[in-house]
Amino acid sequence: MAKSKFEYVKQFEVEDKCLPNCWIVIRVDGKAFHRFTDSHHFVKPNDDRGLTLMTRAAQAVMEEYNDVVLAYGQSDEYTFVFRRNTNVFNRRGSKIMSNVVSLFTSSYVFHWGRYFNTQTMQYPPSFDGRWVLYPTDKNLKDYLSWRQADCHINNLYNTCFWKLVQESGMTPAQAQERLKGTLSSDKNELLYTEFNLNYNHLPELYRKGSVIIRKQDTDIIEKNHLDGNSSLSSSSSFSPRNSVSFGYHIEQTPRISTKIDVLHCDIIGEKFWTDHPHILSFKK
Amino acid sequence: MAKSKFEYVKQFEVEDKCLPNCWIVIRVDGKAFHRFTDSHHFVKPNDDRGLTLMTRAAQAVMEEYNDVVLAYGQSDEYTFVFRRNTNVFNRRGSKIMSNVVSLFTSSYVFHWGRYFNTQTMQYPPSFDGRWVLYPTDKNLKDYLSWRQADCHINNLYNTCFWKLVQESGMTPAQAQERLKGTLSSDKNELLYTEFNLNYNHLPELYRKGSVIIRKQDTDIIEKNHLDGNSSLSSSSSFSPRNSVSFGYHIEQTPRISTKIDVLHCDIIGEKFWTDHPHILSFKK
Amino acid sequence: MAKSKFEYVKQFEVEDKCLPNCWIVIRVDGKAFHRFTDSHHFVKPNDDRGLTLMTRAAQAVMEEYNDVVLAYGQSDEYTFVFRRNTNVFNRRGSKIMSNVVSLFTSSYVFHWGRYFNTQTMQYPPSFDGRWVLYPTDKNLKDYLSWRQADCHINNLYNTCFWKLVQESGMTPAQAQERLKGTLSSDKNELLYTEFNLNYNHLPELYRKGSVIIRKQDTDIIEKNHLDGNSSLSSSSSFSPRNSVSFGYHIEQTPRISTKIDVLHCDIIGEKFWTDHPHILSFKK
Amino acid sequence: MAKSKFEYVKQFEVEDKCLPNCWIVIRVDGKAFHRFTDSHHFVKPNDDRGLTLMTRAAQAVMEEYNDVVLAYGQSDEYTFVFRRNTNVFNRRGSKIMSNVVSLFTSSYVFHWGRYFNTQTMQYPPSFDGRWVLYPTDKNLKDYLSWRQADCHINNLYNTCFWKLVQESGMTPAQAQERLKGTLSSDKNELLYTEFNLNYNHLPELYRKGSVIIRKQDTDIIEKNHLDGNSSLSSSSSFSPRNSVSFGYHIEQTPRISTKIDVLHCDIIGEKFWTDHPHILSFKK
Repeated sequence: MAKSKFEYVKQFEVEDKCLPNCWIVIRVDGKAFHRFTDSHHFVKPNDDRGLTLMTRAAQAVMEEYNDVVLAYGQSDEYTFVFRRNTNVFNRRGSKIMSNVVSLFTSSYVFHWGRYFNTQTMQYPPSFDGRWVLYPTDKNLKDYLSWRQADCHINNLYNTCFWKLVQESGMTPAQAQERLKGTLSSDKNELLYTEFNLNYNHLPELYRKGSVIIRKQDTDIIEKNHLDGNSSLSSSSSFSPRNSVSFGYHIEQTPRISTKIDVLHCDIIGEKFWTDHPHILSFKK
Repeated sequence: MAKSKFEYVKQFEVEDKCLPNCWIVIRVDGKAFHRFTDSHHFVKPNDDRGLTLMTRAAQAVMEEYNDVVLAYGQSDEYTFVFRRNTNVFNRRGSKIMSNVVSLFTSSYVFHWGRYFNTQTMQYPPSFDGRWVLYPTDKNLKDYLSWRQADCHINNLYNTCFWKLVQESGMTPAQAQERLKGTLSSDKNELLYTEFNLNYNHLPELYRKGSVIIRKQDTDIIEKNHLDGNSSLSSSSSFSPRNSVSFGYHIEQTPRISTKIDVLHCDIIGEKFWTDHPHILSFKK
Repeated sequence: MAKSKFEYVKQFEVEDKCLPNCWIVIRVDGKAFHRFTDSHHFVKPNDDRGLTLMTRAAQAVMEEYNDVVLAYGQSDEYTFVFRRNTNVFNRRGSKIMSNVVSLFTSSYVFHWGRYFNTQTMQYPPSFDGRWVLYPTDKNLKDYLSWRQADCHINNLYNTCFWKLVQESGMTPAQAQERLKGTLSSDKNELLYTEFNLNYNHLPELYRKGSVIIRKQDTDIIEKNHLDGNSSLSSSSSFSPRNSVSFGYHIEQTPRISTKIDVLHCDIIGEKFWTDHPHILSFKK
Repeated sequence: MAKSKFEYVKQFEVEDKCLPNCWIVIRVDGKAFHRFTDSHHFVKPNDDRGLTLMTRAAQAVMEEYNDVVLAYGQSDEYTFVFRRNTNVFNRRGSKIMSNVVSLFTSSYVFHWGRYFNTQTMQYPPSFDGRWVLYPTDKNLKDYLSWRQADCHINNLYNTCFWKLVQESGMTPAQAQERLKGTLSSDKNELLYTEFNLNYNHLPELYRKGSVIIRKQDTDIIEKNHLDGNSSLSSSSSFSPRNSVSFGYHIEQTPRISTKIDVLHCDIIGEKFWTDHPHILSFKK
């Protein structure tokens, strides 16, 4: 067979090894999720089912890739942080990223029914992916702060926008016009004065997004069967501990799950990092 | 809000624009599909349901991205060729690739039930992705020839291997030992002598893989409702024309499908390219 | 010795192989040559000594790297085209580029005295370098046309500018103001009307720049000793043939020179390429 | 003019911005310097003229690029470390590297006569260049340690090799054979026993290479005229302080030199970094 005659085309592939000793950050982002959430009647501005499904998909990624030390999600995006010395896939950026975006997507579709029950998926959603390198812990923390600040800004805006539309009967254009040029303080004031809503009393899931970390004590491993909604409903931000661990077990695979925590807390301040010092010093 | 303070982290993102005027080839590849096909009791060496599901997922990619001029699939992999002057996503390699791998994955899980009926998916499968650039038509054709030659070589081997295991009762190790060092001619002989099988009479779907192209006459567009298995069974290599077109229609989306053909034919020889000259000269 | 302990740092080096089957174009460009030409009293707008020294340095690059099929120079820049299938330095872009820019620089300083005689070099000049890939012959020709069009536009402007300054006694600012918004036709007219100069009668060296190609008949190789100014003066655009070949010989090195031609002709039109078909089909 | 028609070719240029917040290391390396040193009768194993000329060229680079915080040279190579937050040339890797390699080369040829006096340069030498990024101070220090360990290993070997050739009358092949498989301790012993030479008494210039740093107190700037050999001879490792500063002044340029030190000391141990803490924290 003339195999060898064609094999030279492999040489056109480009090596894309990530610079060693840098944090590898993968972010997946919903493609055209405005349309997708409209088509599937998501509750606006926040749909608990959609947000927990995102976290369920992120959990699958963390179960599969042990070198992910933290994941952070908000809205239709999720970030995965691989430890700086990971050697997964020989640090090939496109290989790591494509595997993560594929498994995340796959899990999102696979687990859909657990969260949306009778609401059938109309068409397959998709996500794009990218990878970014951060040389220092400071840069990595600033990246995560950037995403959480983005979560806050968007959620505050969206909360106002949908109150104006859903409760004041404004058109989207009118609501947009009403909010143009307002500061955060103006928006807080608007919610309190016009809708009697204290923004800070909203669930932290909405205001802070979701942070998935691995439990520090990895010696104690409990095998749990995946129990879908029940486990995930307890992971909501309304629970007293504001955190919950859930396991993952598949019949055919011997993979033993390491325990993880889902938090909805501030990660901009130093407190988070001093409370969880193992995240940045995680060794395989 | 201290947003601006963190936004500098965006500067760590790297531009990865594909060199202009090159064919952009995206290949998605099943991750650990040995395990996946075992867990889901795929027929060996070829499972029609699995192969047509792959093509169904590839079709979704072609529907979404008009600049894909050809897709080629075999085993657990699929290749998508974007026309050399495409400007999709401003030619950002990781953006194009991640969107393709995500939509492919999503569609594979989404459409699973149509092909595997009562056999439920046990766990979400995933695919990796890569992109490669080819400067000339010759290089692109050689790439596709490389994949089809690979299809042939693997299928011939697998056909022998599974005959020995399934019909001669060998263990996998014995079958492997039996085939070590054999040439293509030896394998053809083995199939004919021991199993009374003429390899060339096997379906072209198995021997050649699947080629998806767009119909040349794009003026005539028929809207078809997706009819799942029935349309796909007719796309099998056993049909007289060895080719079939199927449409794709989603209630909520105004996207009008352009018609495509699924072929199972030789693409190594020049005949394919002279029969379909529009593929390489496709303009938006 | 603790060598092995430190050697891991080599892994931070990045592979930068040029995509196969593409033309590799290296361009070197004078750094702060306004200051350098002022400091060294270059004749404005064109200094024959400076231009021929540039070509002498480019010639050294062509002598050293046999895979350069053409070089094009104008003003303080020079372009080197490596044949599309070159394997020099395993196609590592930064390796090829840095070697070219270094040898070009080195030769410029080394040969300075031959062209500038008693005028001593005041300080070492430098050049930056870059590499660009072109997938097709058309793209490569367009690149070269782009540089020659640039040569024409700048030279027409500079010719006008310096006439106004040197002969009309304008200040640079006045000359600049006078030329603002003028078209090529206006500038031709200005030269003819005010300075009785037919632009098209200026030496092609100034209007077209310099093209270095290899002689087609590479069987006949004559060894010439470098004879500096005399050979280079004969390479000026005033010579009847508008072309001259010169050899290069170094006592200590066994390298046998391949013969080259320096031309000052149009390379935008097709004529150049039909006259020299071997350039694009050059094989090692 | 059909300029616009061709300008699209600029889009084929690739952005190569260095990852922010990483040390940018540029290394230049002599091309075929075995031949060059033979042709120019360099003293083996170390030629003071050649080594100080290298340092003179490196000094020119440090004078031109203020963001170089340290340079390290040995044999025919020199490394330049740009501070991690430099924004020179917008951090474009090939632009920074090509400018450095060009200015280094240019200065090497330009200053040749000062060090080699009557010995004329036979042909222009050249250097290749590369850039490497290091995310942490530790990685940077390890890089520099790697180069200095290399200096030591090569110098010990070369010292033995040339003693055997020059004093014991061995052929190069015999000397190579004699040294095959020997450890550092064996080589030290050989030098002491057979040649009565204590390796540690050799000049640090040979054993440690050359380190160029900027003086910490940049307020006091003295303008010195370059005085060539005399200044450089005082920079040798035999001087009591093992360090010397020299200035650089060019008639035509207003550039005021910042003062630098040339050292020949250990940079593998921590002492160097604690003695010069400003190097790693250098701000513009």
